Amino acid sequence: MRASRQDFILVASLLDRIPNLAGLARTCEVFKASGLAVADASIVNDKQFQLISVTAEKWVPLIEVPVSTIKVFLRKKKQEGYSILGLEQTANSVPLDQYAFPKKMVLVLGREKEGIPVDIIHILDACIEIPQLGVVRSLNVHVSGAIALWEYTRQQRLLQS
Amino acid sequence: MRASRQDFILVASLLDRIPNLAGLARTCEVFKASGLAVADASIVNDKQFQLISVTAEKWVPLIEVPVSTIKVFLRKKKQEGYSILGLEQTANSVPLDQYAFPKKMVLVLGREKEGIPVDIIHILDACIEIPQLGVVRSLNVHVSGAIALWEYTRQQRLLQS
Repeated sequence: MRASRQDFILVASLLDRIPNLAGLARTCEVFKASGLAVADASIVNDKQFQLISVTAEKWVPLIEVPVSTIKVFLRKKKQEGYSILGLEQTANSVPLDQYAFPKKMVLVLGREKEGIPVDIIHILDACIEIPQLGVVRSLNVHVSGAIALWEYTRQQRLLQS
Repeated sequence: MRASRQDFILVASLLDRIPNLAGLARTCEVFKASGLAVADASIVNDKQFQLISVTAEKWVPLIEVPVSTIKVFLRKKKQEGYSILGLEQTANSVPLDQYAFPKKMVLVLGREKEGIPVDIIHILDACIEIPQLGVVRSLNVHVSGAIALWEYTRQQRLLQS
């Protein structure tokens, strides 16, 4: 498992904050993502990004997917056999611990405040949410993404063992 | 489960960075920790802390545990029936997906760079590590803690269902 990348792509094109994007690059490498989609690939030249992500160029392959092309990208990946998932609290979201992840998945993260726009929600195969037990129901988007990627990884390891 | 707190305490006294501490306060509230131990409780007056944690005073109960008293605190909690665990990569660490969490636990996080000092490692009941598949084997400490707390929560929910 160490040798090959896992068959998921994380879409972080909707995120604005550099620390979240750089942190996700680090987390994607730890869990060996096949790709990390960002709105602007020149972000790797940003000093703050480099500070947090360190040696980002050796890490997970960055894919440039501007916000205006997210839907096209997701439809293309769906044709390639990926399940297209979103991490979002909606009326139909499946709690993370009740969801069996497909091996091939694209996981879309929402904007820091507004989450995933409704036109993108509509083309997702499913939405997954992290059960939140407290009064304040808002995890940081990097943390949420990391928890979902861990749960995916845990399930894949279980299937392989 | 929404009504009562989960029976774990997170010890973040070794952490220095305000964004990590404030983020962990938020994450502890989401997973309803019984307590979050920090080295200096006056941190809640820090502007950056407040900005990230928002309404921190309504959140998880803060416990002041200065670094010099961590071992005393952990021994006291052990006497109260808590398992004392660390999140750290050591020769004897158990991978997170192979560890069955006890209901009553105290989880110790390490310093941002150096991890958990060896004298504290020695009084832990177990060390748990997050399996890391990539070349860069270093998750952010807030992210690591959040993943461990999610895994604990997932297991408790499974036992209750």
